Amino acid sequence: MVRSDIKMTPGKLAAQVAHASLSAYLKTDNENQRLWKLEGQTKIVLKVPDESVLFKLKELAKRNNIPTALIRDAGRTQLEPGTITSLGMGPANDSDVDDMVRDFSLY
Amino acid sequence: MVRSDIKMTPGKLAAQVAHASLSAYLKTDNENQRLWKLEGQTKIVLKVPDESVLFKLKELAKRNNIPTALIRDAGRTQLEPGTITSLGMGPANDSDVDDMVRDFSLY
Repeated sequence: MVRSDIKMTPGKLAAQVAHASLSAYLKTDNENQRLWKLEGQTKIVLKVPDESVLFKLKELAKRNNIPTALIRDAGRTQLEPGTITSLGMGPANDSDVDDMVRDFSLY
Repeated sequence: MVRSDIKMTPGKLAAQVAHASLSAYLKTDNENQRLWKLEGQTKIVLKVPDESVLFKLKELAKRNNIPTALIRDAGRTQLEPGTITSLGMGPANDSDVDDMVRDFSLY
């Protein structure tokens, strides 16, 4: 889940998504890590209008026991220091995630 | 390291980079994983002109004992099935990686 209201180059965006993906993966229990790798490590990048939506999704995921990682950029290059750019969610059950993200478009 | 000669949306690019990053991380030994996380998980996304460069970099990394992950897209969406999109390298010592990638630009 990535903010669409901040400007990043494609490479910067990709690095933020990679942070979010790895950080959320590392918070996942071994069994869900294993299953997700077996199933081909599906990753989907969606856009949200602003950071408030990331906070809401984080809370919602927490209530559903889905691991999350909120990514804050160090701001050495394209963004102000501390800018929240993205939220990694899962690996988790497809249908649990689908319910939370069905309103968002592909980035 | 991502091919610049194939067209992907920013979200697709980001998912490929996340695959490369996580897969290379998982091939890294525990001590280098630990050090890299302590140092803030630096990730840099660079472009290469075509897939032949990814193969060359993979060989070069192998000779330097740097873990790599060559990413092939399943091709269900934007690309032909089996298209090689990117190469994850490291985590590894900064100067070892720098020597291999200094000729490439940020994506």
